[in-house]
Amino acid sequence: MAMASQALVSSTFANVNSAKDVSFSSAFSPSSLRCNDAMPRMTVSRGIRVASCAVESLEKEKTSYATKVTRNANFAKLQAGYLFPEIGRRRAAHIAKYPDAKVISLGIGDTTEPIPSVIAEGMKAKAQALSTLEGYSGYGAEQGEGSLRAALQKFYLKLHPDTGVKASEVFVSDGAKCDIARLQMMFGADVTIAVQDPSYPAYVDSSVMMGQTGGYEADSQQYNKIHYMKCTPENDFFPDLASAPRTDIIFFCSPNNPTGATATKKQLEELVAFAKKNGSIIVYDAAYSIYISDDSPKTIYEIPGAREVAIEISSFSKFAGFTGVRLGWTVVPEELLYADGFPVIKDFNRVMTTSFNGASNIAQAGGLACLSDDGWKAMEELVAFYKKNVEIIVEAVTSVGLTTYGGKNAPYVWVHFPGQSSWDVFAKILEEAHIVTTPGSGFGPGGEGFVRISAFGHRENIVEAAERLKKLFG
Amino acid sequence: MAMASQALVSSTFANVNSAKDVSFSSAFSPSSLRCNDAMPRMTVSRGIRVASCAVESLEKEKTSYATKVTRNANFAKLQAGYLFPEIGRRRAAHIAKYPDAKVISLGIGDTTEPIPSVIAEGMKAKAQALSTLEGYSGYGAEQGEGSLRAALQKFYLKLHPDTGVKASEVFVSDGAKCDIARLQMMFGADVTIAVQDPSYPAYVDSSVMMGQTGGYEADSQQYNKIHYMKCTPENDFFPDLASAPRTDIIFFCSPNNPTGATATKKQLEELVAFAKKNGSIIVYDAAYSIYISDDSPKTIYEIPGAREVAIEISSFSKFAGFTGVRLGWTVVPEELLYADGFPVIKDFNRVMTTSFNGASNIAQAGGLACLSDDGWKAMEELVAFYKKNVEIIVEAVTSVGLTTYGGKNAPYVWVHFPGQSSWDVFAKILEEAHIVTTPGSGFGPGGEGFVRISAFGHRENIVEAAERLKKLFG
Repeated sequence: MAMASQALVSSTFANVNSAKDVSFSSAFSPSSLRCNDAMPRMTVSRGIRVASCAVESLEKEKTSYATKVTRNANFAKLQAGYLFPEIGRRRAAHIAKYPDAKVISLGIGDTTEPIPSVIAEGMKAKAQALSTLEGYSGYGAEQGEGSLRAALQKFYLKLHPDTGVKASEVFVSDGAKCDIARLQMMFGADVTIAVQDPSYPAYVDSSVMMGQTGGYEADSQQYNKIHYMKCTPENDFFPDLASAPRTDIIFFCSPNNPTGATATKKQLEELVAFAKKNGSIIVYDAAYSIYISDDSPKTIYEIPGAREVAIEISSFSKFAGFTGVRLGWTVVPEELLYADGFPVIKDFNRVMTTSFNGASNIAQAGGLACLSDDGWKAMEELVAFYKKNVEIIVEAVTSVGLTTYGGKNAPYVWVHFPGQSSWDVFAKILEEAHIVTTPGSGFGPGGEGFVRISAFGHRENIVEAAERLKKLFG
Repeated sequence: MAMASQALVSSTFANVNSAKDVSFSSAFSPSSLRCNDAMPRMTVSRGIRVASCAVESLEKEKTSYATKVTRNANFAKLQAGYLFPEIGRRRAAHIAKYPDAKVISLGIGDTTEPIPSVIAEGMKAKAQALSTLEGYSGYGAEQGEGSLRAALQKFYLKLHPDTGVKASEVFVSDGAKCDIARLQMMFGADVTIAVQDPSYPAYVDSSVMMGQTGGYEADSQQYNKIHYMKCTPENDFFPDLASAPRTDIIFFCSPNNPTGATATKKQLEELVAFAKKNGSIIVYDAAYSIYISDDSPKTIYEIPGAREVAIEISSFSKFAGFTGVRLGWTVVPEELLYADGFPVIKDFNRVMTTSFNGASNIAQAGGLACLSDDGWKAMEELVAFYKKNVEIIVEAVTSVGLTTYGGKNAPYVWVHFPGQSSWDVFAKILEEAHIVTTPGSGFGPGGEGFVRISAFGHRENIVEAAERLKKLFG
């Protein structure tokens, strides 16, 4: 490989299909794999710009030994690197180019404010206890500690009196992204899926990995066999279910990442009725529910009948700044059955016990602290802080005539740039205002013409970013 | 479901194929699913005792609604519940039966001693820092923090000067069990695998889940398409490679769980040569390497050529008592290529960035502390403590004429009960000595006739367990 790497000083730029190398390279030391540009040149394909060193063929030539193991064909279908590492790479390249610029990151949606003390104290106390004979504990239940599962049951009771969520139906995990992969592993290769378009990329990418899809179609920018439910201003960001085909699984996120749109009770009733009619399973992503301040449902289980058709995933990441601490959960109701009557919860339990070993006990102590009265109050203050950030961004961007969506019940502002390429706008904002955003088309073709601005940031950075955006687009 | 559950008061006992219900039931509140016995009666099938309520058929009858989603057929192939939850369930049932007995748990292999202060302090400091503006961090790299990856590179350098492991090849994770599942997701359904028999159950179970296997054969107690490499006293616990067929993947664990056997340098050279000849990929599980006190290799990368054929997984669980903290890592060398020349590390990077979001930053701070000079010393003391436990157990068990294996370089004692059923011996030790062990056959048919005794325990419990075992078998 050392030899192969050296050969790479002469690099070429490959097509969209090899764009995974871009994000890959960010994982490597500069010496191990490199293109000859600090930031690879780009090829344009329908508004998505991707780039790559032509690594594979060179490696094949130069390396003397390869195993006889065939590469998983599903991985070869995957397009450009997973979105957020790619954004991170572009950010790093920008900083390298402008070492003196004050780059403000409103891209990946990463929390920035400290974890409230009352919650951090819970984790400190657990770390301390683990160093004592009385307080030490080893393996916990793969499904999560009983106390935390019980606290999450109460959390649901607080959200709505009729959710019916039991502690035994709550599976504590290291985060929603990880649970999505485990759910896909459970569903297997033979299910069909639908996603909102645009949507959080992990739904689609994990589906491709598991072999649920056909190949990628460059024209439509869609994978074969996935149904993309367009969510745009025209349909108030709620899919047209009347024209949607039946799929086995429907991924649905509300408040939505990236659009910030939040489904009303009536819309969710429609969704549940649609799933029930079709015998589909909804995977409902409620990771942003705490940002809801109107009467939109905070859990799918507010909707009668949802227990027979819906799994809910959620996370402490955006509730309490746990993006790095890693703690989430998934609810699988006992009533949810496969076609043969077999309870889905049993297979999910099997996945959790076989391919997972419990969330970190320190993180779980933090989760318990989050759900205490003081912890809850602290989380509400944290969320209020970020929502004030949203207001500042929305005000700035609308003041220069841009149209925004989302924001009301979510930490994301979805800014419309009609007729423009998302990646172009992303590049312009980065180059000229030194602000990292996320190109809407990174969330699916339905996001083209939009840019997502995250409201996670220190206040002074948000205020400055707002000023820069006003200047840039004013 | 409430109705369905009530119907279960009249339960029947199903065949081996439904035994997954047993472990499943441990995840549920008693009210949600129950058999009419506190501990289900058992049916005997070739030495494995399993039991089940006939849940599925009743549920199907009584529940009014089922989705039209077909259950993943691979899950239906899975046999009795994942081993360790099952052991936990039996332990709980025993405690319920003998509330006054002092049950000693030497089953699951769970660490019992406090995390050394120097390491716990690292985690406390991180939890504290997360509550400050300066110390807060959100999402880390999915591959792990740079400082920890660099420290693990140094760790390999310390093990052996020629491993060649680079920081960029180390992927930090929440544990080896989770990485096994992610590796399987990467390999996909079309690979063939070989495992040591007996072996850690997660290799086989994750393989079945991913669809790499055929059905289970009750006669051989093996899944079709998996090659079981028998490891017994007859072959010094090293598989007969001359008679082994080629498979794509070879899972190999040394020091071995459960047998405690440790491959010599010569044996590992044979293994690498075998993989190289066949173009196979070795997944080398080195989770117990720190227990090696002779000159057996502590990493597969001590073997020349291993970088072209081997992935190594490892974990802080048994190094520092991190079973509940959750921290491990996987090394994928750049030289490891699929048949088409595509680097395996690229696909593993893709799995990690798409289906994982980094190990807890607090756990990673603990990992860094582990690898500091003081942390390393503390881990060595911890390991020495457990190895003294091993001596006590081995001495007791051999003093009454039983033959043991393992122990020398591992925290497990593999006790031979020739001609007896592992589950029978397990049940006898639990019933008469109130000691939880692990039946060897739970690790595969090759473990039949053995029981694994874990040396993880407080000294006084180990001493008492040793006494009870002497009495029981003396």
